[in-house]
Amino acid sequence: MLKVAIVGASGYTGLELIRLLERHPKVVISCITSEQSAGKKISEIFPSLLGRCDLVLESLNPDSVAARADIIFTALPHQAAMVVVPDLLAAGRKVIDLSADYRLHDPAVYGAWYEPHKNPELLQEAVYGLPELRRDAIRPARLVANPGCYPTSVILGLKPLLQKKLIDVSTIIADSKSGVSGAGRSAKVDSLYCEVNNSFKAYSVGGIHRHTPEIEQELSVLAEQKVTITFTPHLLPMDRGIISTIYATPIARISSTELFELYTQTYSDEPFIRVLSSGKFPSTAFVRGSNFCDISITLDTRTNRIIVVTAIDNLVKGASGQAIQNMNLVSGFAETLGLEGLALFP
Amino acid sequence: MLKVAIVGASGYTGLELIRLLERHPKVVISCITSEQSAGKKISEIFPSLLGRCDLVLESLNPDSVAARADIIFTALPHQAAMVVVPDLLAAGRKVIDLSADYRLHDPAVYGAWYEPHKNPELLQEAVYGLPELRRDAIRPARLVANPGCYPTSVILGLKPLLQKKLIDVSTIIADSKSGVSGAGRSAKVDSLYCEVNNSFKAYSVGGIHRHTPEIEQELSVLAEQKVTITFTPHLLPMDRGIISTIYATPIARISSTELFELYTQTYSDEPFIRVLSSGKFPSTAFVRGSNFCDISITLDTRTNRIIVVTAIDNLVKGASGQAIQNMNLVSGFAETLGLEGLALFP
Amino acid sequence: MLKVAIVGASGYTGLELIRLLERHPKVVISCITSEQSAGKKISEIFPSLLGRCDLVLESLNPDSVAARADIIFTALPHQAAMVVVPDLLAAGRKVIDLSADYRLHDPAVYGAWYEPHKNPELLQEAVYGLPELRRDAIRPARLVANPGCYPTSVILGLKPLLQKKLIDVSTIIADSKSGVSGAGRSAKVDSLYCEVNNSFKAYSVGGIHRHTPEIEQELSVLAEQKVTITFTPHLLPMDRGIISTIYATPIARISSTELFELYTQTYSDEPFIRVLSSGKFPSTAFVRGSNFCDISITLDTRTNRIIVVTAIDNLVKGASGQAIQNMNLVSGFAETLGLEGLALFP
Amino acid sequence: MLKVAIVGASGYTGLELIRLLERHPKVVISCITSEQSAGKKISEIFPSLLGRCDLVLESLNPDSVAARADIIFTALPHQAAMVVVPDLLAAGRKVIDLSADYRLHDPAVYGAWYEPHKNPELLQEAVYGLPELRRDAIRPARLVANPGCYPTSVILGLKPLLQKKLIDVSTIIADSKSGVSGAGRSAKVDSLYCEVNNSFKAYSVGGIHRHTPEIEQELSVLAEQKVTITFTPHLLPMDRGIISTIYATPIARISSTELFELYTQTYSDEPFIRVLSSGKFPSTAFVRGSNFCDISITLDTRTNRIIVVTAIDNLVKGASGQAIQNMNLVSGFAETLGLEGLALFP
Repeated sequence: MLKVAIVGASGYTGLELIRLLERHPKVVISCITSEQSAGKKISEIFPSLLGRCDLVLESLNPDSVAARADIIFTALPHQAAMVVVPDLLAAGRKVIDLSADYRLHDPAVYGAWYEPHKNPELLQEAVYGLPELRRDAIRPARLVANPGCYPTSVILGLKPLLQKKLIDVSTIIADSKSGVSGAGRSAKVDSLYCEVNNSFKAYSVGGIHRHTPEIEQELSVLAEQKVTITFTPHLLPMDRGIISTIYATPIARISSTELFELYTQTYSDEPFIRVLSSGKFPSTAFVRGSNFCDISITLDTRTNRIIVVTAIDNLVKGASGQAIQNMNLVSGFAETLGLEGLALFP
Repeated sequence: MLKVAIVGASGYTGLELIRLLERHPKVVISCITSEQSAGKKISEIFPSLLGRCDLVLESLNPDSVAARADIIFTALPHQAAMVVVPDLLAAGRKVIDLSADYRLHDPAVYGAWYEPHKNPELLQEAVYGLPELRRDAIRPARLVANPGCYPTSVILGLKPLLQKKLIDVSTIIADSKSGVSGAGRSAKVDSLYCEVNNSFKAYSVGGIHRHTPEIEQELSVLAEQKVTITFTPHLLPMDRGIISTIYATPIARISSTELFELYTQTYSDEPFIRVLSSGKFPSTAFVRGSNFCDISITLDTRTNRIIVVTAIDNLVKGASGQAIQNMNLVSGFAETLGLEGLALFP
Repeated sequence: MLKVAIVGASGYTGLELIRLLERHPKVVISCITSEQSAGKKISEIFPSLLGRCDLVLESLNPDSVAARADIIFTALPHQAAMVVVPDLLAAGRKVIDLSADYRLHDPAVYGAWYEPHKNPELLQEAVYGLPELRRDAIRPARLVANPGCYPTSVILGLKPLLQKKLIDVSTIIADSKSGVSGAGRSAKVDSLYCEVNNSFKAYSVGGIHRHTPEIEQELSVLAEQKVTITFTPHLLPMDRGIISTIYATPIARISSTELFELYTQTYSDEPFIRVLSSGKFPSTAFVRGSNFCDISITLDTRTNRIIVVTAIDNLVKGASGQAIQNMNLVSGFAETLGLEGLALFP
Repeated sequence: MLKVAIVGASGYTGLELIRLLERHPKVVISCITSEQSAGKKISEIFPSLLGRCDLVLESLNPDSVAARADIIFTALPHQAAMVVVPDLLAAGRKVIDLSADYRLHDPAVYGAWYEPHKNPELLQEAVYGLPELRRDAIRPARLVANPGCYPTSVILGLKPLLQKKLIDVSTIIADSKSGVSGAGRSAKVDSLYCEVNNSFKAYSVGGIHRHTPEIEQELSVLAEQKVTITFTPHLLPMDRGIISTIYATPIARISSTELFELYTQTYSDEPFIRVLSSGKFPSTAFVRGSNFCDISITLDTRTNRIIVVTAIDNLVKGASGQAIQNMNLVSGFAETLGLEGLALFP
């Protein structure tokens, strides 16, 4: 059995890791940490785990964690992860980091959108862990930077078009909508039930959301040219789920049928990508709790504009599920192991 | 007191008319109709009205309705309205129609998106009832076509830019999100609680939603040229509210400050339009139950793209509130009468 | 115009006071305070108020407030209200206090359930402001203790039975369910959207909720004997609304018809109480945003048990609406003034 | 591999059976039926299943189904199940029926609460399938009557008290609250999103809900005397989950500690019952999607009343999960097989 540790286990991504790993046949959770709740059983915080995972949360001691785990998930806020990860790597452990700290390769870009990086030398080594983009680079990685939720939904939606150089990259607009769990579990007035329920709004409008450079980095790799996009996030009155509605103009004439074939072929071997048939559009409801990314591809013939819609569960394919997918790759397991769960609907 | 009738009162827009008109100081509801629920008190169907509006729903008899009302709201499905409206007009009454039947001026366009029109001659007479566009034409109108909910949210968002010819009209994308009440009160599996709750999805993707030609008709008037847009509606897990996130590329260099001033000046005298200050974005929560349309205007300087976000309550400014605003205009009342209510938050 | 001040205006009950008072024809809000948000416009915190109430929140200075207001609403947490209220009274102003600080007449009971009281001498003077119980005592009052939300829903449900001494008071069970706004607007993990949505639970089970002595005090007055009840609150995944399902065993044989007549007669002159006809049961949906209390009375003939169900909006009849009803009484206005709004449904 | 069929697979309990059975290591779904959707893939109706269960729904032919399945789940409305079940049994198959048709042993009681029974002779043979009550009787059963959702939540809550004869059975009140999925997937105005969202209400008040005789039958067996209860169901604005708050008066003095020990001991070997520690109360959030029943036991010392609170997911422990638990028993599998999933939270 592979021993894994979860650093920062008392948030929603930590809980989701536990929920999924509990049914993983080749993994045992050996250690979980939380500074705020050290000394408490995780099942006191999340009674869903009662009787099934009653581990006690520890205050983080990197050496102690490294001594008891083969692979470590770090589910900390950005800036906090980079304080811990180097020690865990130095102790010879593999790390799958769910924060934003190792996703950007260029320290200057990281510094411009976040704060100065404390260990910029790791930015080149870290592998951006989107298996559908670079499965082979992830397998041998020591440090996997698990992608952000919005970036996962946008990049997977555009990969086929960009790889084939079919669209004018200056026309890309990603209008994304996320459930509230993306904001984490900290006590903020903005995340209160009464503030969010029955409410929908845009935020960080105008290209200022921190996921923007992450999306652009990966789109640029796919397009083999610098890509700058308009990205507008919105907050949905629901727990989980992201829909990204992505617009782009084709460079040359292309038909709906050709687009559909491009998408089905590109993703034909992907276990977690489902391309919906013509006239069907993804719903967050049908991916909730699962690691699937559902995608539709449509051509608006009136305006000659391509519209890609993608749906993921931000806590699964957008965070913890993808982290386990990466763990499976790094560990030589079948990529889908422990991720077989279907969406909980209704 | 002005006597008003509501034809098709047992749906959500009918109820919303009653809720608002109950506090209107110059109006009395004299007659309400419903085919499905004829003979029942409206307060049996909607107990919120108990003790305050206990009128009995009647089966529609146009002559009888016309005899007892000065102004008639028709809140029927499209195709049903056009069967009734001519008789009501012929009886000398003014009609404010909340269906789609009289919004499009061109019978061919109506026929292409709906079915053939039964009284196309009225399409030229009917006034598209968006007061912020044509207040003066509404005042003397005999037949007001009350705008659709999505169109209201998109047209108000673009009016300042189009009037000043500041944007390339071929670049307009409206990504709109609506609450479930927009789908009405008929029993459909797709509108069941368990199908919608915790769920978000796009629908009618690719320029096929019937509000598209209505939006384009009015944008074309504003732009003084033919406008074709990409319009993508989405279904939100909440009762009321629409957010439209609208993208367009400016023709020439323009600054954020100039855009903000354009919007505040354009709408400075409008009682129901609120332009939010820089860095604030509209939320459906703060217009729910009110007749306001909240608007933000942002320039994404990285991509030189303008992003307008608008919020309305689809049942108020997007339907019944706007219908009352039109009634006020037609009747010579202060335009805001009966529409003073603030949003119910939380 | 009556000048009113709202002390503690940045919470949900403060906002609801403003929403309702904005449409009150005889009142002007002269002053609002908040320690946390002093210096900000209230419409920055609650954009629903934009353009309609843009008052600046002040830090509380009791003398300054008293100098500018005839009546003062104190919407502070318990223990904070009692620090302020004496000064406001001393300045010759009338106070309607929405906290729990002046609801209990017995300082020992207050001390046992809360903390020691700082001005116990006011507990005898304060009038428990449930108009349906003691309208005449409220009119001349200097200090009105506005009832709690749960107590309002339980006391109104039992008043007819207790006044007529029809039930065994030892059998009373109140199983109450409240929306989340009852927990206020402070940032707590327990009130986060993701913790509450899709979730329902009991809390303070076993007679430990602080509303228990308040309910019992008023039921004892009605019954003319000491009443002790089992009260179980629950948290509903919605913003507003309380349902109390109340059980009691009749002392003697009584029929459904007699019970229904008792309720309709008792409340026949009450403008805000609606007794539903047989077979209909209250829903929070139909009182949301309104000052109504809807009540059903049922006899379970199989077990000879009476079941009363009541519905209120906890922020209106359970707080701010009732406070305005009290203000109307104290000021000699029609009791329903400014409270004519119907529920917002859907 | 055990071959199973699902008759009536296009409803929520049918879907939940598929979701759970998909991860069951010893089962293959061989056949699914639906009259309304015959000829369609189940994954067209529920896209959550896409790529994982794309079986085509068939019109029901009992012989054909029996020929291809070892065990058959019937997930039909009451009255429809009894038309099919005898044929399936006659063909030598075992049936787990999720309808109400075989839960009541007395045909007269069934006739009084539903309609006359078509095969009353099966009522004695059918085993009421609550494993925590009669595991040994279920194992050899040919026909298992899977319990109702409300009854499961109430019976499990009272079993320890009744078996030990600790309470006055005439004092039992069950105040239950259920999510909307309990109403099924048929198109009804009452189940529309806009009717249910932001809404809470009691229904079938006064002992008229059809689950009442089912609850009383099983409580009477446990108590070894006839039990009649007051049962009040309520409708929650959420998809899944039931909380039952159950009140009863002890016959003799008993302490909180004794009650807690009674519950922990009674359920110590039950894999799906979790007794919460003192001061903790169940939430539907922590059982959602899982087969757990969480229980708290509290003594209100002020009124000497016992309060039991139970939480289940009505679609899992209240329907499909329990049906699989019964299938495991009938098939000689480990009782928990395929039911290891933890709740999806948030």
